[in-house]
Amino acid sequence: METQVVIMAGGIGSRFWPMSTPEVPKQFIDVLGTGRTMIQMTYDRFCKGEGALCKPQNVWIVTSEKYVDLVRGQLPEVPEANILPEPASRNTAPCIAYACWKIARVNPDSNIVVSPADAFVLDSAEYRRVIGTALSLTASSTKIFTVGIKPLRPETGYGYIETGEALGEEAFKVTAFKEKPDAPTAAKYIRDGRYLWNAGIFVWKLSTITAALREYAPGICSIMDRIAESFGTPDESTVLGELFPQCEKISIDYAVMEKSPDIYTIPGDFGWSDLGTWGSLKANLPQDRQNNAVVSSGSAELWDCKNCIVHVDGLRRVVLDALDGYIVAERDGRLLVCPLSDEQKIREFSSKQA
Amino acid sequence: METQVVIMAGGIGSRFWPMSTPEVPKQFIDVLGTGRTMIQMTYDRFCKGEGALCKPQNVWIVTSEKYVDLVRGQLPEVPEANILPEPASRNTAPCIAYACWKIARVNPDSNIVVSPADAFVLDSAEYRRVIGTALSLTASSTKIFTVGIKPLRPETGYGYIETGEALGEEAFKVTAFKEKPDAPTAAKYIRDGRYLWNAGIFVWKLSTITAALREYAPGICSIMDRIAESFGTPDESTVLGELFPQCEKISIDYAVMEKSPDIYTIPGDFGWSDLGTWGSLKANLPQDRQNNAVVSSGSAELWDCKNCIVHVDGLRRVVLDALDGYIVAERDGRLLVCPLSDEQKIREFSSKQA
Repeated sequence: METQVVIMAGGIGSRFWPMSTPEVPKQFIDVLGTGRTMIQMTYDRFCKGEGALCKPQNVWIVTSEKYVDLVRGQLPEVPEANILPEPASRNTAPCIAYACWKIARVNPDSNIVVSPADAFVLDSAEYRRVIGTALSLTASSTKIFTVGIKPLRPETGYGYIETGEALGEEAFKVTAFKEKPDAPTAAKYIRDGRYLWNAGIFVWKLSTITAALREYAPGICSIMDRIAESFGTPDESTVLGELFPQCEKISIDYAVMEKSPDIYTIPGDFGWSDLGTWGSLKANLPQDRQNNAVVSSGSAELWDCKNCIVHVDGLRRVVLDALDGYIVAERDGRLLVCPLSDEQKIREFSSKQA
Repeated sequence: METQVVIMAGGIGSRFWPMSTPEVPKQFIDVLGTGRTMIQMTYDRFCKGEGALCKPQNVWIVTSEKYVDLVRGQLPEVPEANILPEPASRNTAPCIAYACWKIARVNPDSNIVVSPADAFVLDSAEYRRVIGTALSLTASSTKIFTVGIKPLRPETGYGYIETGEALGEEAFKVTAFKEKPDAPTAAKYIRDGRYLWNAGIFVWKLSTITAALREYAPGICSIMDRIAESFGTPDESTVLGELFPQCEKISIDYAVMEKSPDIYTIPGDFGWSDLGTWGSLKANLPQDRQNNAVVSSGSAELWDCKNCIVHVDGLRRVVLDALDGYIVAERDGRLLVCPLSDEQKIREFSSKQA
């Protein structure tokens, strides 16, 4: 059974303005200063080196129409036909359905991994092992798997997976999905021990997810059936543009995961972070003795600074003095200086475009 | 008697890094965001509009060799021959002598104003009136005038002029020049009432300053005599390059003003500032209700900031949050974020070139 990887790359990354902008959002940025962008690192995790889970021609990227050129430029190994432009953002259920209906045309006998484009994984080998285990379990059953992350702290920024009965050596039945909790609830989850972070990584057979979508999201499926009639015809783009926006805006979690009785999880412990906040990005970067983390294209000198994260791209020299706990971010002529404690304001800053 | 204006424009403005850099120092920058650079504003004060004190062809700019193109570009009205390149920085006495020996070739019967390129004057009309008064007094005597500024506060960043006996309605004999005082001494000066700020603006007849230099700085004069032999010949630049650096490095204050018995001053009250610190620059800019001053080529949004000065040139959007009392300065790919209270450190930052 052939493995296909669907990378969801439609986000606009507004929490990371101005490093991330609506023109070039986070997944297309070398956020960690490694020389590879987030989507490239995600691709590499599946396709590069020994033990690769997937061939480049089996990678599918679902993204906004306006990011197609970015994907093409950053992932030249992925066939053009596998870059799937969404004419409108309709959350993850229509996004995943679109990719699955495409994959069905190529190989109905596929096993699928769905991953966000912009999560960070420290231990790729362990990541592959866990995904591989899930793939072998979905190949031989109609189970749906989600990869849970062993929680490291009572994080209130993630959703949680409640696990029940064990399934074999590694997997567990999922008994509930929990929304982002408040701090006492998160602390309770950690003490309880049965809860995992929800990383939004899914593994299923094509036939399994298709059947689940037909059962729980028939509206989306009937639209996809109509769109699929145009696949490979000159009308494809027009039909897609007309019909796709008619899909219900709904996440795969609400549409399927919380409804299907057949959801399982494998707890993963591979240094995962969604890098969803400046704080989590900082935590995943090397830090100096004063707990400053710096990613810079030029020189950056921090004098008497502590607990800062500096992410600059277009400046050749940055001198900072006497800042404690600040974000200093620059990209493409835009500069932000803002305390980490105010980072929830950044969406507001970024929404005022200039 | 023809008035000649000598503008000294050799400074490197290291206190204003990175707004000011050794490549384009403060006097060549639109520091106040008015659309004119400091040297252009200085030129305008003497030459523009009704009541101009001087014709463009009587303006002389002494500057470093490497700034000649900047002067030419910013002051196209000034004849090329009047831009005098110093092969080395030798402080103000050799600089002034150089200009005077040049002027002597053109018109020995000249009356001269010497001004720094980068001081700020709010009330140009009053400035002209005061300078005009000084010029009439030097034209008819062998007195040397310096323009003193009526002090507004016990500033420790300026030198002071101690005044004695009155000379006519506006002028006073200078009894002493005082170095930058400590705070108690500055406070004493203000209470005393006889002290003025030393603005480094001088007025004298060519024959007067030449005679004074011959008496008090004969070494510089003999070098200038030898340089002057080459004026207008193909060897001029070579001779200047060889001999000028041999001049003693000394200010006109030490070389002449503190030695001559014939020094007078006219107190001026025309909104003068040397804009020598970020603090004084801030004080001369319009401020918002939270005492922030902003000069920006693009948009600058200050959220919950107070007492900041923002001076950005190459960024199209700047968002600052929760800064109190900071300098945020950017030019040509260089960024500084530094508290105003630390601005004495900026020279150190700027000396580490990158």
